[in-house]
Amino acid sequence: MKKQKIITISRQFGSAGRTIGKKVAEKLAIPCYDDEILQKVAAESGFHPDFLKDQGEYYVSHTFFGGALAGRNVNGYNGYSIQDEIWIVQSKIIQELGAKEPCVIVGRCADYLLRDVADCLKVFIHADMDFRAKRIVEVYGERNEKPLKRLADKDKRRKKFYKYYTGLEWGDAKNYDVALDSGRLGIDACVDVIVNLYRMKEQRETD
Amino acid sequence: MKKQKIITISRQFGSAGRTIGKKVAEKLAIPCYDDEILQKVAAESGFHPDFLKDQGEYYVSHTFFGGALAGRNVNGYNGYSIQDEIWIVQSKIIQELGAKEPCVIVGRCADYLLRDVADCLKVFIHADMDFRAKRIVEVYGERNEKPLKRLADKDKRRKKFYKYYTGLEWGDAKNYDVALDSGRLGIDACVDVIVNLYRMKEQRETD
Repeated sequence: MKKQKIITISRQFGSAGRTIGKKVAEKLAIPCYDDEILQKVAAESGFHPDFLKDQGEYYVSHTFFGGALAGRNVNGYNGYSIQDEIWIVQSKIIQELGAKEPCVIVGRCADYLLRDVADCLKVFIHADMDFRAKRIVEVYGERNEKPLKRLADKDKRRKKFYKYYTGLEWGDAKNYDVALDSGRLGIDACVDVIVNLYRMKEQRETD
Repeated sequence: MKKQKIITISRQFGSAGRTIGKKVAEKLAIPCYDDEILQKVAAESGFHPDFLKDQGEYYVSHTFFGGALAGRNVNGYNGYSIQDEIWIVQSKIIQELGAKEPCVIVGRCADYLLRDVADCLKVFIHADMDFRAKRIVEVYGERNEKPLKRLADKDKRRKKFYKYYTGLEWGDAKNYDVALDSGRLGIDACVDVIVNLYRMKEQRETD
């Protein structure tokens, strides 16, 4: 069966990865999945979206105490953490979405989850601390007084989470087809690059 | 003084980074410096180009024995290795080239060396082992019977060298404006992305 051509966007917090994903999807007239995934996971798992938002990128160590304290299983402790359960539900949803139709999926290790299911253009968006700090205050409306600390913490958490569930290094260029610095290149330039690469990918098939 | 807009291309061995650099330079009608740098370093340092080619990306540990054994100084041991001396001559040449005119410079940590001297579009080109193994045998004419081992060795060496002289992680997406997988995207697509980003960079200035 022909695999769907989709775009996965991994991104540093504050790097405008989500905005870029939405703009790319608009230009290509395909759906962009971001918060929609959270809603679907919430509906399927029973967890509240706010809880998922917070826990969805936490890694919990599977030592006895970590596992036992984090575990929450109706049938008693089975070695899974809450994060594992969220991961399982989320993986299934992402794999269904990615196999169904061309789309953009932001975050959630979709590049890894869809490696065998879809024909992915794997994108990573990053930017330096100053660009991101300014953005999380001005655009996201974050009121944290120490945005640099908040960014460093988020980066560390996403890196750990990605490594734990995929075994790969988050932000290592070789895991992506294209990695772009949105701060230095500008958001619109990033959108153009991704749209063009996607169109070339489509073109290659029809040639 | 206005900084020159240049393109630096770091690349994994066998990833076609040099070919991409040459094609980009052709399209933009600017010079591409690669082996020319080696020739200049040879002329200035007195070392033979073949020796430079081999040593130019070796990192030598500066322990007493490493330094003492690798050192070769007319005035006796001064703590520099041959690699350090090559590095110093090469750095000067690259900084002069990068400050002079728009150009493409392939390899040699030019992105790092020119960080304050030129306005660089910093590119990293990579590809998976199979693509690169095929290429070093077919295109470069390498006769090594174990191309995968040769690639792994080269990667390791470049990474260590880059880290030693720049303090940065070679291949970490965040050190580059754009990182591209030439195996998955194709050489021409990589050329297009770089040419377009460079033109957008020029455009931004004239707007």
